[in-house]
Amino acid sequence: MREIDQVVQLLAKLPGLGPRSARRAALSLIQKRESLMRPLAKALSDAADQIAVCATCGNLDTTQPCGICEDPRRDPTMLCVVEQVGDLWALERTGSFAGRYHVLGGVLSALDGIGPEDLNIASLLSRVGPGKPVTEIVLATNLTVDGQTTAHYVTERLADSGVKVTRLAHGVPVGGELDYLDDGTLAAALKARQTL
Amino acid sequence: MREIDQVVQLLAKLPGLGPRSARRAALSLIQKRESLMRPLAKALSDAADQIAVCATCGNLDTTQPCGICEDPRRDPTMLCVVEQVGDLWALERTGSFAGRYHVLGGVLSALDGIGPEDLNIASLLSRVGPGKPVTEIVLATNLTVDGQTTAHYVTERLADSGVKVTRLAHGVPVGGELDYLDDGTLAAALKARQTL
Repeated sequence: MREIDQVVQLLAKLPGLGPRSARRAALSLIQKRESLMRPLAKALSDAADQIAVCATCGNLDTTQPCGICEDPRRDPTMLCVVEQVGDLWALERTGSFAGRYHVLGGVLSALDGIGPEDLNIASLLSRVGPGKPVTEIVLATNLTVDGQTTAHYVTERLADSGVKVTRLAHGVPVGGELDYLDDGTLAAALKARQTL
Repeated sequence: MREIDQVVQLLAKLPGLGPRSARRAALSLIQKRESLMRPLAKALSDAADQIAVCATCGNLDTTQPCGICEDPRRDPTMLCVVEQVGDLWALERTGSFAGRYHVLGGVLSALDGIGPEDLNIASLLSRVGPGKPVTEIVLATNLTVDGQTTAHYVTERLADSGVKVTRLAHGVPVGGELDYLDDGTLAAALKARQTL
């Protein structure tokens, strides 16, 4: 059973899986040995070999620079700043951002001892300025205290660069009901009301 | 991104993981490439190569017969009948059953068209009878309609074999509060009340 235990213990380290669900997942894998277990082993091994962090934007891809940085159809004047690669994926799924990205790799956090030098802020600053095509930076950090602190810090550092700094709109989520919304979101939505 | 998509799609097929949690898991794997991603790829590949179904009891192990069937310290007079390997693992974790097991591989289900010939019932019958050490069969199928139907069927088939057939006790779970318990369990616990 050592082999099964090994699989269970490693699966249990994934976010969202505990010991019990890891055992269920392991059993399911063994029962679908050829259709799921072997393909997953190969996919993991291939991905571990081939995926690298893009030196330009911090995205994960198999090419250097990444597919988004290399894509000539992308608008070179816009950069969207996100905390993590997962946020980049979320924005890409919407299909509504045509520019390129910059992944900070986290947020400023006094509590966790994460300062500006621990994030990809210097490389962000090197992408704007004279001779660079970027004219607008869209800040898409999370609406948490740390995310907003980071957004403010980045805005300050960009003050002299001459680029326009914008942030995502805050308001009522699409499909959201006012009655179930938290007060902060509702207040923000009211403050940012738009003329029809 | 094809390599990442492949990992996400395969992870999303595991029970308990949807598309969103599969993406989170894939990101976590890529971030822990050497400590988690490669070891998991290897563990899956090793397990796929080495794990087999025990021809005697239906357990999963790397030896044939499995470690439990081969263990001479196990009580040869008791067999515990379970639906799935996961149930066997659950009983093993309690450390309170000293006999051996028999995995049916499912339950009788008219709805899903699963009859006695689809389960490991013939092999169970071949493990009892004259000349065999087994004197007691403990039925540990689930307390579902199908599980109980299967338990009754197995009991009938064992009627002429001369072995004692028992089942797990039903009642109030340890730590359970009566107020939150369903009526069926409470009624069963009352019916099976024991003298102090």
